Amino acid sequence: MSKLFEALTPYLDKSYALSSALTIFSWDNSTIAPKEAIENTSRAIGLLSGEYYGALVNEEVKRLLLQLTEPENHKQLTFEEQAIIRVLNKQYQQMAAIPPEEFQAYNALVSSAYPVWEQAKANNDYASYAPVLEQVIAYKKKFAAYTKKEGQPLYDVALDDYEEGFTVAILDEFFSKLRTALVPLVQKVNEKKGWIQTDFLQQDYDIEQQKSFCRFLAEYVGFDFNRGTFGESEHPFTTSLHNHDVRITNHFYQNRLDFAIFSVIHESGHALYEQGVADEISLTPIGCGTSMGMHESQSRFYENNLGRSLAFWTPIYAKLQQTFPTQLEQISLEQFYRAVNHAQSSLIRTEADELTYPFHIMIRYEIEKEIFSGDVSVHQLPALWNDKYKQYLGITPPTDTEGILQDMHWACGNFGYFPSYALGSAIAAQIYHHLAQVMPLETHLKEENLQPIRAYLQEHIHRFGMAKRTREMLQEMTGEDFCPDYYIAYLTEKYSKLYDL
Amino acid sequence: MSKLFEALTPYLDKSYALSSALTIFSWDNSTIAPKEAIENTSRAIGLLSGEYYGALVNEEVKRLLLQLTEPENHKQLTFEEQAIIRVLNKQYQQMAAIPPEEFQAYNALVSSAYPVWEQAKANNDYASYAPVLEQVIAYKKKFAAYTKKEGQPLYDVALDDYEEGFTVAILDEFFSKLRTALVPLVQKVNEKKGWIQTDFLQQDYDIEQQKSFCRFLAEYVGFDFNRGTFGESEHPFTTSLHNHDVRITNHFYQNRLDFAIFSVIHESGHALYEQGVADEISLTPIGCGTSMGMHESQSRFYENNLGRSLAFWTPIYAKLQQTFPTQLEQISLEQFYRAVNHAQSSLIRTEADELTYPFHIMIRYEIEKEIFSGDVSVHQLPALWNDKYKQYLGITPPTDTEGILQDMHWACGNFGYFPSYALGSAIAAQIYHHLAQVMPLETHLKEENLQPIRAYLQEHIHRFGMAKRTREMLQEMTGEDFCPDYYIAYLTEKYSKLYDL
Repeated sequence: MSKLFEALTPYLDKSYALSSALTIFSWDNSTIAPKEAIENTSRAIGLLSGEYYGALVNEEVKRLLLQLTEPENHKQLTFEEQAIIRVLNKQYQQMAAIPPEEFQAYNALVSSAYPVWEQAKANNDYASYAPVLEQVIAYKKKFAAYTKKEGQPLYDVALDDYEEGFTVAILDEFFSKLRTALVPLVQKVNEKKGWIQTDFLQQDYDIEQQKSFCRFLAEYVGFDFNRGTFGESEHPFTTSLHNHDVRITNHFYQNRLDFAIFSVIHESGHALYEQGVADEISLTPIGCGTSMGMHESQSRFYENNLGRSLAFWTPIYAKLQQTFPTQLEQISLEQFYRAVNHAQSSLIRTEADELTYPFHIMIRYEIEKEIFSGDVSVHQLPALWNDKYKQYLGITPPTDTEGILQDMHWACGNFGYFPSYALGSAIAAQIYHHLAQVMPLETHLKEENLQPIRAYLQEHIHRFGMAKRTREMLQEMTGEDFCPDYYIAYLTEKYSKLYDL
Repeated sequence: MSKLFEALTPYLDKSYALSSALTIFSWDNSTIAPKEAIENTSRAIGLLSGEYYGALVNEEVKRLLLQLTEPENHKQLTFEEQAIIRVLNKQYQQMAAIPPEEFQAYNALVSSAYPVWEQAKANNDYASYAPVLEQVIAYKKKFAAYTKKEGQPLYDVALDDYEEGFTVAILDEFFSKLRTALVPLVQKVNEKKGWIQTDFLQQDYDIEQQKSFCRFLAEYVGFDFNRGTFGESEHPFTTSLHNHDVRITNHFYQNRLDFAIFSVIHESGHALYEQGVADEISLTPIGCGTSMGMHESQSRFYENNLGRSLAFWTPIYAKLQQTFPTQLEQISLEQFYRAVNHAQSSLIRTEADELTYPFHIMIRYEIEKEIFSGDVSVHQLPALWNDKYKQYLGITPPTDTEGILQDMHWACGNFGYFPSYALGSAIAAQIYHHLAQVMPLETHLKEENLQPIRAYLQEHIHRFGMAKRTREMLQEMTGEDFCPDYYIAYLTEKYSKLYDL
């Protein structure tokens, strides 16, 4: 290790230790902390966050980073060390661009915006939320302008925070292809409402039995319980302390079997990514998934491309029937497969099916783009939202609560975040296509042999953590840059067949 | 707040935040962390421990403490601030007395001693452990000598670490009274082996049912689930982040109903203490129980004085019978009461009953005293141990594993710790006697009304945290200093009656 990089390690160690503490508190608060704990506990969390910030943002680290990015010094570093410097440097440049007093004012604003949004959503009262949203938007645009390069669209800066390498140019092409190919498909599917029977999924399913089947599913796809654990929370999520401690939560509803089943496969996909990070980098700043889109590609690959396929359920559907004999005895594998792939336009993003989901994202993407180009005021947003839902999905939200107020993201200042959700699905389809070429994918699934799939993804994606970037890994693995065509082909083929179109 | 004390608060805040993080990690590791996590996680814990140490042990805090203990400044402080200074100052003086290089060498030694002890216990091989134990003892005696005052017994210094105000003089009198009164009682009880039927407690008790009954019991004695939660671990324990987040664990055995029941009442006693600390001091260095003995008095008061009484079970035994009808239908309240109070000499401290328990402590106390007076070598200890078990309990450990190797305390350097366990029982009996004078204690129990008991303890003990000391609170509450007579009277009366002596 170079002397210069060595001088950085105490700061990296301290930031790792403090971020671990913040992770464990966050997990604990979402899963088991008692109801009245948070007020006191949040004092500790606030203090630790401050320590965490100070561990990396200080004059000494700044000086070291400056030196370590000089070509003479940089070339002495290992591949992983260079990646660490790249990641830290990006954070630094973003922070350094924003005057501290503005950053502080912005943080105070978003803290206060969240409860305003929550109230507005509860009361279906967009007007009460519009003023604070307007302020959040103003800050986000101002911050983006600080680091915007000559000729770069302002929205590109926001996108870059979540998905390095993905720009408005790429996303415009992506969504334009989606629109052209899938709007007519969605219309046709909507016309065949009732074509697929789904009522049996809403019967009474014992929760303890659901839990035990979900545990089986996680193990089946390869979740390692020696290096991970399960919890329950309001909304399912995955979190990771390091590659030997990766945690999944789930939520169980008595009458929604498919919710728990596909949530656990989805979160297991995230978890396999984190469990697959190489030991050598696990405790460093590059020891986690490389981007939100790539992370989401892994969860959706497992949930949708594998988990909602006939081949996946062929060897294990009988086990599900045995777990719930009264509910599923009369339901064939084919019927089950069709039910869990049922599609229909709906209003709420988080409850959307695989086919209509990307439209929820496209709508938000288009609105964010208009916000960043300055062509729209906050007061126009609800109408714009509703028009787009009508145009793409053929439905109109009866209230803003079921419309523009449904997501917390904007209240939290997360602009540029939504596209990653759709990118995840598209990348998953591209990876699926590639895997089907390099291995007998369907045969593996039918033979209950998921190990080669997991090993391949670990070899080409998981182990690198943030040491490689999304498009770079796609290129090296598939021989091709990001390409949305596979996603469109996948959805078109799957849903044309399912709905006999 | 005085300006000087205010200057101390950032250090107190930081130490509170870091100790919270260490507490939550420790809880997590004992309850849900996956098996292979610890190696990576312990790096974070080690780093946070270092930060925690540095938060309070530094030149600035030292300087502030010096100023704050000057009479002029000290009298400006509130009662609680004075207590904080007292507690910090004690820590400081202990640390300052030990040369840092010796302290570091000692820490390294005890880290290495633990696995040696573990192996020795597994292999019944005291000889392999004796050399490292000898070194630990040498350090502990050396450290105690650094702060020993003129004419003070060396062992007093060790005792003071765990139980301020309790000296060899007090403990000698305590144990001498115990010995005189109870050795003959234990002999008589041992002679009546089989007098009490206990086999029905070892039937097959469904674990889910045990859990639900334990939850009921915790709520019954007053554990507040809005400000606390439950977990499972190898050994039951209580931990606290602050007074709004206090956590209990339990361990369930299919065939040991009484283990889970009395563990949960015991831990609830600890938890009520922590939940009862006043809001104003909860996040400060005095925001927890005042001493180990006082803490243990609360857990044993609930477990034994209340929880093993006939009055306690009178209103709720029917519920236990309903929970386990096949096992307990034919067992009367009186039979159940007698079974859970069954006594008999045994070898393992942690499994001992209420009557013989203090002898396990007395034996360790007497040996520690000899160690500190220098009259005994490590090689003589096993024989000394076995002689005392024969003398007081009438039994001889067939192996050192069941004898001197059973506890981890000495390997961890915890000399002076054991007496607090017995003090806890004695203080509990003194409190019980007092409560019976100031309220209709038995009537409250029979009427399922534990609230007045809890309120009284909170008012006179819990709310103060460490702001008052053990003997001080006893004096103020009962009008009397610590007095072991109540404990001896309680055990004598209870067991004479149970065994018809």
